[in-house]
Amino acid sequence: MDVIVPFDATTPNTRLAPVLDQHERGAFARVMLAAVLETVEDAGHDPAVLATAPVECPAPVTVDDRSLTPAVNDAIATATLPVAVVMADLPLVTVDALDTLVGADAAVTIAPGTGGGTNALVVDHPEFRVDYHGLSYEDHRRRARECGAEVSTVDSFRLALDVDDPADLVEVLLHGDERVASWLCERGFTLDETGQRVSLERDDSDRA
Amino acid sequence: MDVIVPFDATTPNTRLAPVLDQHERGAFARVMLAAVLETVEDAGHDPAVLATAPVECPAPVTVDDRSLTPAVNDAIATATLPVAVVMADLPLVTVDALDTLVGADAAVTIAPGTGGGTNALVVDHPEFRVDYHGLSYEDHRRRARECGAEVSTVDSFRLALDVDDPADLVEVLLHGDERVASWLCERGFTLDETGQRVSLERDDSDRA
Repeated sequence: MDVIVPFDATTPNTRLAPVLDQHERGAFARVMLAAVLETVEDAGHDPAVLATAPVECPAPVTVDDRSLTPAVNDAIATATLPVAVVMADLPLVTVDALDTLVGADAAVTIAPGTGGGTNALVVDHPEFRVDYHGLSYEDHRRRARECGAEVSTVDSFRLALDVDDPADLVEVLLHGDERVASWLCERGFTLDETGQRVSLERDDSDRA
Repeated sequence: MDVIVPFDATTPNTRLAPVLDQHERGAFARVMLAAVLETVEDAGHDPAVLATAPVECPAPVTVDDRSLTPAVNDAIATATLPVAVVMADLPLVTVDALDTLVGADAAVTIAPGTGGGTNALVVDHPEFRVDYHGLSYEDHRRRARECGAEVSTVDSFRLALDVDDPADLVEVLLHGDERVASWLCERGFTLDETGQRVSLERDDSDRA
């Protein structure tokens, strides 16, 4: 299946600013992207990156500097159905999780993200279009119903966890893709178990 | 299958103090407990509450005022295997999620929680014992290997989301059990979509 992977190549992961500087945030975004692309390939699918600016990565790249919703909708409109849209900031994603997503066999399959977003979906209905603004999970369910498309929701923590805030990096260190977790470890990130809840620590001694 | 549901009847949900007073936190914990118990029954299992103090609820209650780990281990030791342990603060849990947990068919099945915890597990090995301190997900995997038990990990957002912090209530309002979400709505909680990310609001006008 063709898998569209939208990627913000311009100002990725701005909410990680408390723990990563701008250069690091760009590098981290590309490490996450590469991991997602490799997992999509390992699952037997064909990833294609839809980026806001040119980016070097091991997959074909289409540059579209519009916002996410119109860019993805144009990509869906010209794709062969079914087509999947999988976000680039899902470092917990595995082949098994993608198999579950793709195997749901509905006209529209949605994997919700934390905070009401949509982290991955499979579209197999010619009229369905996305709208990533706001609580997109509920919006996508409503839109699917409006065009008569059966909806399936995938219950997966690995698809639900996108990287927004520094707290999300705890999950990456615990359950994430080896390369992405290693990238964080090499930059001094560790888990602090001393508090009531595990938290993120960074040893800044190597930081410029 | 017998399902042990540990319940802190003494000081539940302390980290919700910024948004719920002590009386409300106790009431909210009991609403979540009742929802989990009903879902366990709907899934065809027999729930039994293991509480730190007496609590009124629609299931048999054993009171054990020790900490979680020894109390659960004694309950496992006297149970007929396989036995499940499902936390009481999982308001996203559904029959489907429990079916996935119980259907994994391993000697030890673990559903990790956010932050490295263990939100649900199924034990079908006579030597396996729990240790909920710290990063219990990794500890439980290690302990299972040490007693030669095959381990399966369940990938479920509905089992991963336990209620710790106010931010978790966003997920309850979006995806949670109807009764638990309604309880929050009746107390003025709504979702605020105006920021970069959806957040929790509370209308305090009815608050004592």
